[in-house]
Amino acid sequence: DDTLIIAGRKFNSRLMTGTGKYKTIPLMQQSVIASGCDIVTVAVRRVQSNAPGHEGLAEALDWKRIWMLPNTAGCTNAEEAIRVARLGREMAKLLGQEDNNFVKLEVIPDSKYLLPDPIGTLQAAEQLVKEGFAVLPYINADPLLCKRLEEVGCATVMPLGSPIGSGQGIKNLENIKIIIEQSNVPVVIDAGIGTPSEACLGMEIGADALLINSAIALAQNPVKMAKAMGLATQAGRMAYQAGRIPIKTHANASSPLTGVIK
Amino acid sequence: DDTLIIAGRKFNSRLMTGTGKYKTIPLMQQSVIASGCDIVTVAVRRVQSNAPGHEGLAEALDWKRIWMLPNTAGCTNAEEAIRVARLGREMAKLLGQEDNNFVKLEVIPDSKYLLPDPIGTLQAAEQLVKEGFAVLPYINADPLLCKRLEEVGCATVMPLGSPIGSGQGIKNLENIKIIIEQSNVPVVIDAGIGTPSEACLGMEIGADALLINSAIALAQNPVKMAKAMGLATQAGRMAYQAGRIPIKTHANASSPLTGVIK
Amino acid sequence: DDTLIIAGRKFNSRLMTGTGKYKTIPLMQQSVIASGCDIVTVAVRRVQSNAPGHEGLAEALDWKRIWMLPNTAGCTNAEEAIRVARLGREMAKLLGQEDNNFVKLEVIPDSKYLLPDPIGTLQAAEQLVKEGFAVLPYINADPLLCKRLEEVGCATVMPLGSPIGSGQGIKNLENIKIIIEQSNVPVVIDAGIGTPSEACLGMEIGADALLINSAIALAQNPVKMAKAMGLATQAGRMAYQAGRIPIKTHANASSPLTGVIK
Amino acid sequence: DDTLIIAGRKFNSRLMTGTGKYKTIPLMQQSVIASGCDIVTVAVRRVQSNAPGHEGLAEALDWKRIWMLPNTAGCTNAEEAIRVARLGREMAKLLGQEDNNFVKLEVIPDSKYLLPDPIGTLQAAEQLVKEGFAVLPYINADPLLCKRLEEVGCATVMPLGSPIGSGQGIKNLENIKIIIEQSNVPVVIDAGIGTPSEACLGMEIGADALLINSAIALAQNPVKMAKAMGLATQAGRMAYQAGRIPIKTHANASSPLTGVIK
Repeated sequence: DDTLIIAGRKFNSRLMTGTGKYKTIPLMQQSVIASGCDIVTVAVRRVQSNAPGHEGLAEALDWKRIWMLPNTAGCTNAEEAIRVARLGREMAKLLGQEDNNFVKLEVIPDSKYLLPDPIGTLQAAEQLVKEGFAVLPYINADPLLCKRLEEVGCATVMPLGSPIGSGQGIKNLENIKIIIEQSNVPVVIDAGIGTPSEACLGMEIGADALLINSAIALAQNPVKMAKAMGLATQAGRMAYQAGRIPIKTHANASSPLTGVIK
Repeated sequence: DDTLIIAGRKFNSRLMTGTGKYKTIPLMQQSVIASGCDIVTVAVRRVQSNAPGHEGLAEALDWKRIWMLPNTAGCTNAEEAIRVARLGREMAKLLGQEDNNFVKLEVIPDSKYLLPDPIGTLQAAEQLVKEGFAVLPYINADPLLCKRLEEVGCATVMPLGSPIGSGQGIKNLENIKIIIEQSNVPVVIDAGIGTPSEACLGMEIGADALLINSAIALAQNPVKMAKAMGLATQAGRMAYQAGRIPIKTHANASSPLTGVIK
Repeated sequence: DDTLIIAGRKFNSRLMTGTGKYKTIPLMQQSVIASGCDIVTVAVRRVQSNAPGHEGLAEALDWKRIWMLPNTAGCTNAEEAIRVARLGREMAKLLGQEDNNFVKLEVIPDSKYLLPDPIGTLQAAEQLVKEGFAVLPYINADPLLCKRLEEVGCATVMPLGSPIGSGQGIKNLENIKIIIEQSNVPVVIDAGIGTPSEACLGMEIGADALLINSAIALAQNPVKMAKAMGLATQAGRMAYQAGRIPIKTHANASSPLTGVIK
Repeated sequence: DDTLIIAGRKFNSRLMTGTGKYKTIPLMQQSVIASGCDIVTVAVRRVQSNAPGHEGLAEALDWKRIWMLPNTAGCTNAEEAIRVARLGREMAKLLGQEDNNFVKLEVIPDSKYLLPDPIGTLQAAEQLVKEGFAVLPYINADPLLCKRLEEVGCATVMPLGSPIGSGQGIKNLENIKIIIEQSNVPVVIDAGIGTPSEACLGMEIGADALLINSAIALAQNPVKMAKAMGLATQAGRMAYQAGRIPIKTHANASSPLTGVIK
């Protein structure tokens, strides 16, 4: 048994995905299924406004099987994010998830790199925790900020690997290792993962889960990439549990030479 | 259909494993099964001499299901390697694989890093091809040497990622990419892979297959690591086919901001 | 002319060093000279308390030539740091630098990785700027935090490459590149640099200056390493100005082949 | 005293440069001087044929100060390379270097990546050593091939960092470290270095010298980049001698906290 537990709720899959950027709704639906994920994040603002590509999104997924993670994408400060989080809770209720109090908190004033504001994120997190939310904050890979967020009651921390949608991989690897070592809540690597090998690496170093959207939605074959990401997440988790070999400077014969015949 | 074909023979799995370094024969047996591999390499000299840990090895695997890849580990020059390759062919016959002419060619004068001799390997390969072997040479990641080996008729090339058993990963990545681009025979990354993420990466760049032994056999839980390696190999292959997203300098919003409600 | 300007003051060298960790005072003195640095940081608490290795430090350097950068090492929160900054200003005055209002702000609650607290650092910075200090804050490589610190009036930002004294190099390279791109105040890479090649790299990507202590003081030959760091800092700056060649996938003949004789 | 000795001849600088790819002859002349190099490689075929950009090259450098290293660029097999090496010796004599028997041996059948042929290079090296040449072979970073070349009497080995002119840096770092560890002749890293930080790194790991052409000649400001490369080469050499600090997982306070005042 190797269940992921966030805010008391159990999940089988350690891969979370999103709904954005797909060419069509059916491709999104098939990719979500192929990935094997249990949690899908949804941009509250986009759904509320029926933005292009988001019409009918509410009905497109089976919310009896998939746990919704409303996110505050598009919010540039704490106030906006708090307001959108509340809208997200309403949205989840309307779609049948009465007890869903999750929110992926994004406070992003920067439109070029989409990096989060540590101060505004901490302020919003504090308020949302008080209002009973299970807060999953998207943040830079700053170990001390993670400690602060944990102290105010966040359900997870979600450090970024590299800028959203950049496909650069886990550039903040060393800081994320420290975060994992010090965290008492699940650590979810969010943003930047471009390939299954990077997903696998994230799990190998001990992350509790991953959130991957662009690398699936914008792959040439999203459904196949979704499946690959799902397998890689599992492989990385297993490897973390199985205990890798140490790295050696020298070689180590696979087929020892003692006792050879001449 | 995505079959690996070597010397005209089809294989479903793109992960090859070995029999060396396991603590017990049962652990080896279970790991081979968990990995899902179709090809297992065996050190001819060790089996012939009943070296410690190799007694009963011949009977330990189901050679009706697993294709044997005899290797010339322990040979320091071309002559020795040629002789041991012939012994390997006899061994395969005795174990019921009448038509098995495969040999993993290792010519390794260096005992510290276990790096192969390019000149001796080329000489032995030329001779063994003449004798009807399907030659899979273990070599440094040298694109020009690979061309030479292909020209003399080798069935694959097997460039090393990093020294055998070192777990350093694929240090020769750039050269291996060039080898893959230029090769007309399957490219098998052999040696150095320590984790599933590295296995996955090798497949993502377009390798046709991987050979992994130490990273499985010496993991704290070899059977679980074997399964992880099998999944990661599949994930990497799928990703190669699915087409990854380009790497961008800047961010790219997962949930576009146009049309947001305020 | 390529002068570094911090808080209106001009400096010729872009390498800053420290006084900690040297085996002897004379080694420190010679290393500071060999490095060619103009700015030396001093731990106020250690000097004030005459801690071992710090007796006579005040007299050991020529403060007519070297600009003192008092630091708040050992402070775990904003209040402590503010208090020690004030002590530092007094110390500089006593040593003859009447107009020295510089402080390297360190707020470090974490004793294992010595990573800074973003919240406490921002609070202390805001207060110290109000008191007329030129504040040089030591921080994690968080681009949004850098923007906040710039907005409250800091004289520089000092993102860390990797943990203090770890010699891991510039692990936060990508974030530091973004910080450099977006900053209106000098960016000084502080902590983690272990070798001249890493120092050089930091300058090549456009950092305005570097602060290096452990890698010099704890080298086997500190004086020679100090000189190497000074040269590498210059080389990196020149390369930044000279404009490097683009990185290409393929080769590009140094000696073109057209027109060759046969 | 830290002199580079090749084939019994002493050199002060550990940076070698070339004459190819410059926009003008004066830029080449100034860059060679700014780099501080003692050895300059010249493409024999280009000079002999008065190829564009090579007219008057023979007269452009002060061969009383600079040691000429004729190279066999443009040769695709051993025979051609041997012939051009002999022409190179004549060229050096005509220019006043009567005793110059040096040749940079390049056997490059591959026009895309300009990677050398290990077999042809070894053959040509063997012949040229017999004819009394001091042979400096350009090769892939293959430790066993290096041993072979040393055994036939080469004066150095010149492993490539990455493809010529690619500016990718030292991609073959791990193999080059092994080559340095095992070599009894000077190891010169040739090809691929794009920046001073990479030059510095090559020297830090213990290379005896570097050869850099494209990264200087094609920089936006070649003269300034030449100077930067010269400084970086010196810095790297000093750092190799000075002994770097070990890399640590954790932090190590620059200003120890014991004895702090409160």
